[in-house]
Amino acid sequence: MESLLGPDHNHPEAVHRLTPVLRIETLVDGVFAIAMTILVLDLVVPQVADPAELVPRLVGMWPRFAIYAVSFVLLGAYWIAHHSQYRFIERADRIMLLLNIVFLMLVALLPFAASLMGEYPDRQVSAVFYGVLVGLIGVVGGLHWWYVTRDRRFIVPDVDLEFVTIVRRRIALTPVLALLAIGLSFVSTYASLAVYILLPSSYLLPNRLDRYFDQAPDGWPSFTANVL
Amino acid sequence: MESLLGPDHNHPEAVHRLTPVLRIETLVDGVFAIAMTILVLDLVVPQVADPAELVPRLVGMWPRFAIYAVSFVLLGAYWIAHHSQYRFIERADRIMLLLNIVFLMLVALLPFAASLMGEYPDRQVSAVFYGVLVGLIGVVGGLHWWYVTRDRRFIVPDVDLEFVTIVRRRIALTPVLALLAIGLSFVSTYASLAVYILLPSSYLLPNRLDRYFDQAPDGWPSFTANVL
Amino acid sequence: MESLLGPDHNHPEAVHRLTPVLRIETLVDGVFAIAMTILVLDLVVPQVADPAELVPRLVGMWPRFAIYAVSFVLLGAYWIAHHSQYRFIERADRIMLLLNIVFLMLVALLPFAASLMGEYPDRQVSAVFYGVLVGLIGVVGGLHWWYVTRDRRFIVPDVDLEFVTIVRRRIALTPVLALLAIGLSFVSTYASLAVYILLPSSYLLPNRLDRYFDQAPDGWPSFTANVL
Amino acid sequence: MESLLGPDHNHPEAVHRLTPVLRIETLVDGVFAIAMTILVLDLVVPQVADPAELVPRLVGMWPRFAIYAVSFVLLGAYWIAHHSQYRFIERADRIMLLLNIVFLMLVALLPFAASLMGEYPDRQVSAVFYGVLVGLIGVVGGLHWWYVTRDRRFIVPDVDLEFVTIVRRRIALTPVLALLAIGLSFVSTYASLAVYILLPSSYLLPNRLDRYFDQAPDGWPSFTANVL
Repeated sequence: MESLLGPDHNHPEAVHRLTPVLRIETLVDGVFAIAMTILVLDLVVPQVADPAELVPRLVGMWPRFAIYAVSFVLLGAYWIAHHSQYRFIERADRIMLLLNIVFLMLVALLPFAASLMGEYPDRQVSAVFYGVLVGLIGVVGGLHWWYVTRDRRFIVPDVDLEFVTIVRRRIALTPVLALLAIGLSFVSTYASLAVYILLPSSYLLPNRLDRYFDQAPDGWPSFTANVL
Repeated sequence: MESLLGPDHNHPEAVHRLTPVLRIETLVDGVFAIAMTILVLDLVVPQVADPAELVPRLVGMWPRFAIYAVSFVLLGAYWIAHHSQYRFIERADRIMLLLNIVFLMLVALLPFAASLMGEYPDRQVSAVFYGVLVGLIGVVGGLHWWYVTRDRRFIVPDVDLEFVTIVRRRIALTPVLALLAIGLSFVSTYASLAVYILLPSSYLLPNRLDRYFDQAPDGWPSFTANVL
Repeated sequence: MESLLGPDHNHPEAVHRLTPVLRIETLVDGVFAIAMTILVLDLVVPQVADPAELVPRLVGMWPRFAIYAVSFVLLGAYWIAHHSQYRFIERADRIMLLLNIVFLMLVALLPFAASLMGEYPDRQVSAVFYGVLVGLIGVVGGLHWWYVTRDRRFIVPDVDLEFVTIVRRRIALTPVLALLAIGLSFVSTYASLAVYILLPSSYLLPNRLDRYFDQAPDGWPSFTANVL
Repeated sequence: MESLLGPDHNHPEAVHRLTPVLRIETLVDGVFAIAMTILVLDLVVPQVADPAELVPRLVGMWPRFAIYAVSFVLLGAYWIAHHSQYRFIERADRIMLLLNIVFLMLVALLPFAASLMGEYPDRQVSAVFYGVLVGLIGVVGGLHWWYVTRDRRFIVPDVDLEFVTIVRRRIALTPVLALLAIGLSFVSTYASLAVYILLPSSYLLPNRLDRYFDQAPDGWPSFTANVL
């Protein structure tokens, strides 16, 4: 009886080692799905006395719709990045659990940052708060990748050193882009927003990692390139 | 050791290839379950000064209850359709991930569209917004099916060409019905609502695909007919 | 490679047959977990001008806390009942999917019924609405059990006829108790509430089905007795 | 065909026995993920007339941000503790299901306790309510561990008696810390808050159980130390 959920009498240690990794992924999936979906709670139907005002009021909500879309795609990109890391991870320890909980605590805060930006789209504090949060999520995600790959302690044995290095450099990009957006907020909050739109595309469009994977063995499809 | 969650030492590439598909389904399940359940948050208990007003106020909420039921069943039908696609998919790439995130972004917006229609059931903008959203979900779902079946790149080898074609035509039905509902909103928003009630029944009632599956091999029960 | 998530080359039909059942359970888990957890959103921290009022105001919220607890445990019991059914089910069809979506639509409505009862604990309409909803959830759950066991079409072959019959009778209990609670609401809404407290205990306490399972083969632990 | 989700024709009883344990974990994951994520709903963007007030108002929200972080990490620690228990559990019965539902009912109440503390950070009732709830979650978690390990009825056979005893003592720590926080609330609610910050660190930092696991066989990585 080979089961993930009970003792595997042939390879007990394998099952025990894998279980926490599965559980982390389940919690991560839950928090991401909820954080993404409750973004919609910030879109509140306007109360109008005169029905003719309804359409203009809805149109006037465009910054909220824009923030909704940007935040949803951004969380989606971070979710992909997180799972891509876990494709190479086969064990977890206490520090990783703590890093994951802090990571999720920041992820679950994004609906507040989105709400702030939707309510005050032209206040600099909104763009800065959003940028700091997005940057911190990137930093914690990067710390996680650095921790699991250090001395190759938690990753599957066949991960290549060049891959680890490319991903490390790539992870540094998110906080840099977040800093750029924060800098641009001194000029215009809408310029910051433009950077937040571009940020997930760096995960979702073909890139240098794809070329790397094209030469990689069969079991590494281009998907795996989406590491944070 | 045969496990979905760790390296299978006999077939490592098989596991790596399957993992992203599983993760997509988990996120999709989460977003659908949340979007469906938070529809209830739009049903707010009325505040009445005179207790005798409570029952009439609840009865007066009937359009909200109707929208709740229609939206819940509609999301349920789309959820079935999405999973039916994934029964034939064995790999994922970056484009598919992007399509899924956009799909979920539209799905998670349905509670707002439902709230708008519940608040303003007789304003045309409500019926149009709802129709555009429902239609777009269908279009993105259709793009996804077209993309995964093109050159049979992401689907299991034994999927039959006739099946792919029937499903493609079938998917075109949702945007057409949504356009019909939008057109009917010029006459009456309640006529549009009637179309939205009928729309999921096209997925849930026996249909041409069932007849196809009746002749299909054993492993394809009639359930698989519910492809978007 | 034996996997639930991809084609099993030895037993392809087995995998295809099982997948929809797994997906139904995932959606059900999600909707139940969310419906249970958002019950807390009805507990709103009171706004007081004089800090000395805070404790009396919190104490005065006791009906809301009571409804919270009753509804949480009731949903928990229904969740157990639903999964117990699925322990014997190996296939799904279109009708079952529809029944499940209607079942979940009613389940997700319970937070509204709980909110109504918390806001107006002594209005009969609250107790009646709650009772009708709880009864309907039982009726749809019963229809589902009747449908899957009819001609033993969807259940595993080794389920015993006596078991099916005991469960069928047992399921009839929930709507009967709900009717009793509705009747008692003509006397007092708190008498109805008492019935709603007792209702889940009929699933959670040892009962006739346990005695049945004590004589059953090894693989049927007493847990399975919790069929709706 | 070795599957967790359908009849295993070689070991049918094994599958039936495991299923409820898996389902409990899924519901637990869902409730924890939602309770953690909806903590953010208590962070409401302030409405200001004069834009210059926005930053001071956000800074003034610091107790809410602090409670958010403390509650998120605390729930994360309890989630780890719960799953650590289930790594040793191979069966479930009716009493365990009831204990789990009561456990989750308390867990899902934490967002209310957090909201109370965020709204009235210097009222003693907030710190006491939070402490009673956190203590009760620990007590129910402890009852659960005591119940499953009593006569080793529900745990895997190879769990060592010394381990069970260390964990039992360790579990007693949470209610003791909660009582300490309640006591300190007579001095200052911020002193209580400090205890709530320390509480999860007792799960997340290296401790006596780690030393135990360092000598344990391979399949017991240090992660398993995080038992409630």
